[in-house]
Amino acid sequence: MARQERGVRTRRNILETMAGLINEVGYEAATISMLVERTGLTRGALYFHFSSKEEMARGVLAEALTSEGVREQEFKLQEWVDIGMLLAYRLPREPLMSAAIRLSIDAKARNVLGTRWPDWVDLGRDLLTEAKRRGELLPHADPWSVAKLAVGSWTGVQLVTEALPESAELVEEISALYQLLLPNVATAGVLARLDTSPRRAEQLARSIPGAASETVHVPAT
Amino acid sequence: MARQERGVRTRRNILETMAGLINEVGYEAATISMLVERTGLTRGALYFHFSSKEEMARGVLAEALTSEGVREQEFKLQEWVDIGMLLAYRLPREPLMSAAIRLSIDAKARNVLGTRWPDWVDLGRDLLTEAKRRGELLPHADPWSVAKLAVGSWTGVQLVTEALPESAELVEEISALYQLLLPNVATAGVLARLDTSPRRAEQLARSIPGAASETVHVPAT
Repeated sequence: MARQERGVRTRRNILETMAGLINEVGYEAATISMLVERTGLTRGALYFHFSSKEEMARGVLAEALTSEGVREQEFKLQEWVDIGMLLAYRLPREPLMSAAIRLSIDAKARNVLGTRWPDWVDLGRDLLTEAKRRGELLPHADPWSVAKLAVGSWTGVQLVTEALPESAELVEEISALYQLLLPNVATAGVLARLDTSPRRAEQLARSIPGAASETVHVPAT
Repeated sequence: MARQERGVRTRRNILETMAGLINEVGYEAATISMLVERTGLTRGALYFHFSSKEEMARGVLAEALTSEGVREQEFKLQEWVDIGMLLAYRLPREPLMSAAIRLSIDAKARNVLGTRWPDWVDLGRDLLTEAKRRGELLPHADPWSVAKLAVGSWTGVQLVTEALPESAELVEEISALYQLLLPNVATAGVLARLDTSPRRAEQLARSIPGAASETVHVPAT
């Protein structure tokens, strides 16, 4: 294995271990000593890749801000839906994804690390602006407002789904959310051809190397 | 002042002080010593009203689960909207309301205290079921699914609004959320007559004794 590839793997290993710690004990309680113990790396090796615990947490947030697996579609609106659906499919399966949302929700961590919500809103607004230019959006639908409300709604539905015992799988709840929002966003002809099914998210996830297919149990902190 | 009335005031004072502590330092870091210091009450007096810190936090959650100020309307759907709009108006103005949502979002506190989200979902489902019986809902709108998605969306929009610096006031963002959801929930004639304006929330709040009219600064924990 080339030195560079080994470095990439070590970096990924650190981020995934950090993600696991965030899910188990929370950001505040996670320590470098725990990382040393779980990764088997020395402190020196850890600090070679990341200068601090904060920087590792920022790395987790950056990895989760992704539209990987989303391909170009006939409708920009479908690409926008795909991003949210794919994330809903991956979140219960990948500790890195669930750790990122825990960091955003945790007020104390957010004070230190900030939040990537503005980036998510920007990503959605750009796609929806292009969708509007192509005539896929209803005249009253404002790309920025819809993008912002969708990021908020997605986040809250995830939070409540996790807390309500009788909830369906996240990807099914998010599918229901898009089905509730889209008729007031998309023009009729486009709406009829959008695919918001959980099955689509599963198929898209298959194209992502390393995306897990099994749900992992993330213990509550 | 009669002894009973004094008891009610003391209880309220304890809950509001506890709410302030939750907003400032979080549930975990809040202590009985801090409550003693801030209320000026003895430990004995505190424990006369609440057996533990947990019970005080449960009291905060119970106070915030309210449809106070919502009056009977021509449309049940308007009552459902009024509950969410009124809460959005009150939250930035009343530490008790913001503390309750912080407790729900905080995973560690939620593990100890549980969550009132199922109660909010039940409240919405009952109103929407009655609205459906009266013909106010579109045929495909399922009261339980809409109620659950609305509780999730409301919560997430609050969270993201608080974190995004350029956001409007919460009641305006929640108004935009209802305007996005309702066209896919309400029949056209009812939709045209629903009032989702922030101004309405302000007027409803005036009927609530003790509901503050000024926005208070809640420090981030």
